[in-house]
Amino acid sequence: MPADPDCIFCKIVAGDLPSTTIAETERAIAFMDINPGTRGHALVIPREHSRDLLEIAPDDLAACASLAQEIAGRAKDRLGADGVNLLNCCGADAWQTVFHFHLHVIPRYKDQPEKDALRLPWVPAPGDMDDIAAAGKELS
Amino acid sequence: MPADPDCIFCKIVAGDLPSTTIAETERAIAFMDINPGTRGHALVIPREHSRDLLEIAPDDLAACASLAQEIAGRAKDRLGADGVNLLNCCGADAWQTVFHFHLHVIPRYKDQPEKDALRLPWVPAPGDMDDIAAAGKELS
Ligand SMILES: [Zn+2]
Ligand SMILES: [Zn+2]
Repeated sequence: MPADPDCIFCKIVAGDLPSTTIAETERAIAFMDINPGTRGHALVIPREHSRDLLEIAPDDLAACASLAQEIAGRAKDRLGADGVNLLNCCGADAWQTVFHFHLHVIPRYKDQPEKDALRLPWVPAPGDMDDIAAAGKELS
Repeated sequence: MPADPDCIFCKIVAGDLPSTTIAETERAIAFMDINPGTRGHALVIPREHSRDLLEIAPDDLAACASLAQEIAGRAKDRLGADGVNLLNCCGADAWQTVFHFHLHVIPRYKDQPEKDALRLPWVPAPGDMDDIAAAGKELS
């Protein structure tokens, strides 16, 4: 898909908007999130425009996952992160705000609330096994 | 890496522990999370044991991302999800509790708080641009 003239991430890929780019591969680039959840929060995007997880081409998805893995390793090695979260938001109702596929790479810091105030997005608790089985059947 | 005899996800892959499996490919399987964040919450894992994002082989990571994409599409088509989140937790300090790589695939439902009470794990707000640049330099 060609660059979308209204897409700010396409403009970052083209160099028409400034960004703190930290890595580039043939298919993907990584740059810093300017609304970071924690120190070192980065985004990985495909160079080619695609709206979201449902639309991205398989090769671009694999390239983004691979670059996110690389950035996660750097976060541990260079920023002293204790862990890393990857997050993708697909759709406005899943918190997507820029409609060019992106993976959040979020370094995590143990016992450093000033750097890391992330909270798990849900409260893990046993689900209703009948409904889990029913949803599983629909998804199979 | 061979199956880890103490790993519950390796046991699920081997069929030695029950699970609601919803999809299988050569390298990956998907099954229902029993502590679901929302209706239809599934996990995608590689058949081969690897501890986490830092350790997983590139082909297995790509296979898991691809299968997660497939399950995300099914969640929209079959469960009526309005969006989907993917989440990976790498390390105990990033909420990882089972140390066999897994991607959470979490369907999202607009205006249905009984089905979907997820909250964004951080509060987006502009960061300190100097520190973002400094972290970016360390990550480059
Ligand atoms: Zn774009
Ligand atoms: Zn395992």
